[in-house]
Amino acid sequence: MRQSAAIEVLDTTLRDGTQGEGFVLSTEDKVAIARRLAAFGVPLIEGGWPGSNPKDAAFFQRMKGVDLGAARLVAFGATHRKGLRPEADPSVQALLEARTPVVTLFGKSWTLHVREALGVNLEEHLWMIEATVAHLVRQGRRVIYDAEHFFDGFKEDPAYAMETLRVALRGGADTLVLCDTNGGSLPEEVYEITRRVVDTFPRVRIGIHAHNDAELAVANTLAAVRAGARHVQGTIGGYGERCGNANLVSLIPTLMLKYGYAVVPRPRLAELKVLARFVDERANLTPNRRAPYVGEAAFAHKGGVHVSAVLKNPRTYEHIDPQLVGNARRILVSDLAGRSNLLAKLAERGLELEAETARSLLEEVKALEHAGYAFEGAEASFYLLAHRLRGGRLPFVVRAFRAWVQGEARGAWQAEATVQVQVGAEVYHTAAMGEGPVGALDNALRKALLAFYPELEGVELADYKVRVLSGQERGTASGVRVLVEMTDGKDRWGTVGASVNILEASLKALADGYAYVLVKEARAPHQAHKAS
Amino acid sequence: MRQSAAIEVLDTTLRDGTQGEGFVLSTEDKVAIARRLAAFGVPLIEGGWPGSNPKDAAFFQRMKGVDLGAARLVAFGATHRKGLRPEADPSVQALLEARTPVVTLFGKSWTLHVREALGVNLEEHLWMIEATVAHLVRQGRRVIYDAEHFFDGFKEDPAYAMETLRVALRGGADTLVLCDTNGGSLPEEVYEITRRVVDTFPRVRIGIHAHNDAELAVANTLAAVRAGARHVQGTIGGYGERCGNANLVSLIPTLMLKYGYAVVPRPRLAELKVLARFVDERANLTPNRRAPYVGEAAFAHKGGVHVSAVLKNPRTYEHIDPQLVGNARRILVSDLAGRSNLLAKLAERGLELEAETARSLLEEVKALEHAGYAFEGAEASFYLLAHRLRGGRLPFVVRAFRAWVQGEARGAWQAEATVQVQVGAEVYHTAAMGEGPVGALDNALRKALLAFYPELEGVELADYKVRVLSGQERGTASGVRVLVEMTDGKDRWGTVGASVNILEASLKALADGYAYVLVKEARAPHQAHKAS
Repeated sequence: MRQSAAIEVLDTTLRDGTQGEGFVLSTEDKVAIARRLAAFGVPLIEGGWPGSNPKDAAFFQRMKGVDLGAARLVAFGATHRKGLRPEADPSVQALLEARTPVVTLFGKSWTLHVREALGVNLEEHLWMIEATVAHLVRQGRRVIYDAEHFFDGFKEDPAYAMETLRVALRGGADTLVLCDTNGGSLPEEVYEITRRVVDTFPRVRIGIHAHNDAELAVANTLAAVRAGARHVQGTIGGYGERCGNANLVSLIPTLMLKYGYAVVPRPRLAELKVLARFVDERANLTPNRRAPYVGEAAFAHKGGVHVSAVLKNPRTYEHIDPQLVGNARRILVSDLAGRSNLLAKLAERGLELEAETARSLLEEVKALEHAGYAFEGAEASFYLLAHRLRGGRLPFVVRAFRAWVQGEARGAWQAEATVQVQVGAEVYHTAAMGEGPVGALDNALRKALLAFYPELEGVELADYKVRVLSGQERGTASGVRVLVEMTDGKDRWGTVGASVNILEASLKALADGYAYVLVKEARAPHQAHKAS
Repeated sequence: MRQSAAIEVLDTTLRDGTQGEGFVLSTEDKVAIARRLAAFGVPLIEGGWPGSNPKDAAFFQRMKGVDLGAARLVAFGATHRKGLRPEADPSVQALLEARTPVVTLFGKSWTLHVREALGVNLEEHLWMIEATVAHLVRQGRRVIYDAEHFFDGFKEDPAYAMETLRVALRGGADTLVLCDTNGGSLPEEVYEITRRVVDTFPRVRIGIHAHNDAELAVANTLAAVRAGARHVQGTIGGYGERCGNANLVSLIPTLMLKYGYAVVPRPRLAELKVLARFVDERANLTPNRRAPYVGEAAFAHKGGVHVSAVLKNPRTYEHIDPQLVGNARRILVSDLAGRSNLLAKLAERGLELEAETARSLLEEVKALEHAGYAFEGAEASFYLLAHRLRGGRLPFVVRAFRAWVQGEARGAWQAEATVQVQVGAEVYHTAAMGEGPVGALDNALRKALLAFYPELEGVELADYKVRVLSGQERGTASGVRVLVEMTDGKDRWGTVGASVNILEASLKALADGYAYVLVKEARAPHQAHKAS
């Protein structure tokens, strides 16, 4: 804990984030994310670039009825075009029509860009910056000035780069943000150049906007903060143009827990993981398991040595208490781990096993691993195994299956499957088509299960992976391992199946996926429709 | 460009990488990756922890016949257990039995760990370090000493942490590696503490091993290098325990291109992207589009301002020339950099293409990638595609196939397939059983092909992987991608098939695998036995 000053955060997930490839949000997604960010305590939420596209302009229209509490919505835009006065420039006009209390205005700092990209002379560009800022300030806006390519520009012509900041201030900007637009700067450069700016403008709030092209966006942001920056721009999950922006999900806890800055209200920090997850779900992206602080693996312990030590004292292998950011310790089951992993894992889920049962479980796990199973990432299958070994009943049994596929050259093909599922004394025999044999089996299995358990309607396959086991790994049996991830829209759980037969392995993993929710929520079967 | 000194890299993808959740490699995957790392110019390749599990010990056995050229294989292990002399400790014995020229030995630096995790007194632990190092050195090993938790340990008790390094040196260690095991240290701490160590041991090679729990592994590694470290440990892609290790794919180009260090031979750097992709394919993981330097999005420019500026002068939005790391600028319009890569790749295999054919190849590749194909790791399929586009004939065509699988509870199952293969005017219709549907299809296909090409007898399936394509990756087609690796006992080659139907995708990849050897060795069909 070194400082107790505050850092102002500007989230640009909805603007720079959506310039990233594959990060696509609808207007309603953007509204929902803006509300979440506001509830989390982010003070400035940049929503889009209304002068550049009509979808962003529509978002700001839509936001006019939305209450963000203490948070302020921010619109982003460029300096006015050459040959036009700001009040006559349609994109400056669009920026004002967003009717946000705060605007981010970007201008060039790098002479190369002024000459080659804009094609105006250096003097004229300074005038464009000052005039646009002044116009926005006259319209009552707080203006944050984003100095694009500041570090590259400063390295080429420090006097000009500094002059662009001076004219932005003269126009009335209240924050000067140094942007590492190409993302290739090094932390020591960012530190030194930010220091120069802070020394030159000691009474002005200086900010940092970093990109991750050399995997240094977080470090560059921290370097600027150490040099005196007190305004930080970034995105949730680090999404953004090319390799992305500085990741606020990593920066916020580091600034608060390791540097002692005030960033968001302290109790909010425990919602960090949920916030990160929410943005991923809205963007329909698989959350990064390895994400610092909030990833599923961030506090997961696999090696046997690590596990026994972390159980004695968490500080031994955890840099912070995972609960501070809403995460939790996870003990992984795998061939690298010993018995302490297994027991800890079960206790974690409230499954207390007697010593005798624990021993058989360990043996069963070893035998299954030898046959090609792997339980890391398949915790639902592991849970079912423990459930069965302590005498728990399974909600159904797959008695038999059959699948056919036929195809011709150039892609005309068909897939069909049947399954026989037994629940209690009843056997339900179903058939279904599918896009492929696994899909056909899943469809036939679902059809059978829904007859008994209509609550499975919302449960579906989220991910499916297959691996062929090579000599070393498979022990004596040859075969494949199938990993399945299922979801009910809220949670996700993984299961595993192994067999010499890919379809049998798939069916095992699928069946575990459905059985898991039923066992966990202790569901009893409904009366099934009679069928043969 | 600031220095021209060298940095020694130790890659621990095969050891610390595999401690990461979901990063699973078979022994053959590990062998293939070790070969690639060696060819890339990585001097030290840490292969596993032979004292901790039999799979790692088996890997070192397997490697005894593998030539890595100038690269050195490294085995990892712990100090001897208390109450045992090093020569009597079975895990130290296992470390020696790996018969690697170099070993990494780790010991504790943090008094908390010595007392709580190991349960020995501080003095005793120092003795364990020195005795184990000395024993390994007496057996002719180069010993790299990994000081676990060095930064956390130093902050709590600097004198003790420093003393552990001193005894490792006294035992004969030639490199002292400071590990940020919990991954929570800050760059300025790493810089200051590394500086202290470098000043204390000015003639010793100091190393850094960083973890990414605060998204600072790359920055912390660079901070240590600025403080004088000249040995860097990390993994390809940053895979590893919890949030992962320092990512060598980001570090190597930054150290070479931005700091001017010698790391790997300069021409090798252009293979960085292929190396990163190769490891992902082997681990059956989706490559990160946003990966710095090597990601698909790393030099992707969306429309408008960025594109026109980047076409005028690439420096405007690119921090380095993408070709230096084997990547390419991606713009919506035709991609010239991509084309020269394709041509170079084919010339490498003796296939010269005319400009017109190269253009159609590029278009076909783009269309196939949109449909779910990926040609990294499937160079044999790529070769066949080019062969076909320049008018080359294919040795056979699969006209139709059919596969059945049926099974009962408790593992009684059957799989059968038929294929119709055409060679010239002749159609050969075969049927075969198999362990699963893919095996049955492979058997039926082989049976048909052997009638025409008996030299395929020695060719077989070596590896088989399936990936379900997620929304973002698959473009408009849903489906799966199958990667197959085949071998004739000497060489290995990879092929790819994609389809909504897993069996059709598999059959495409298998057929390419057989076709490739026949085309490459320009085999003519023999007279087939007549059959229907």
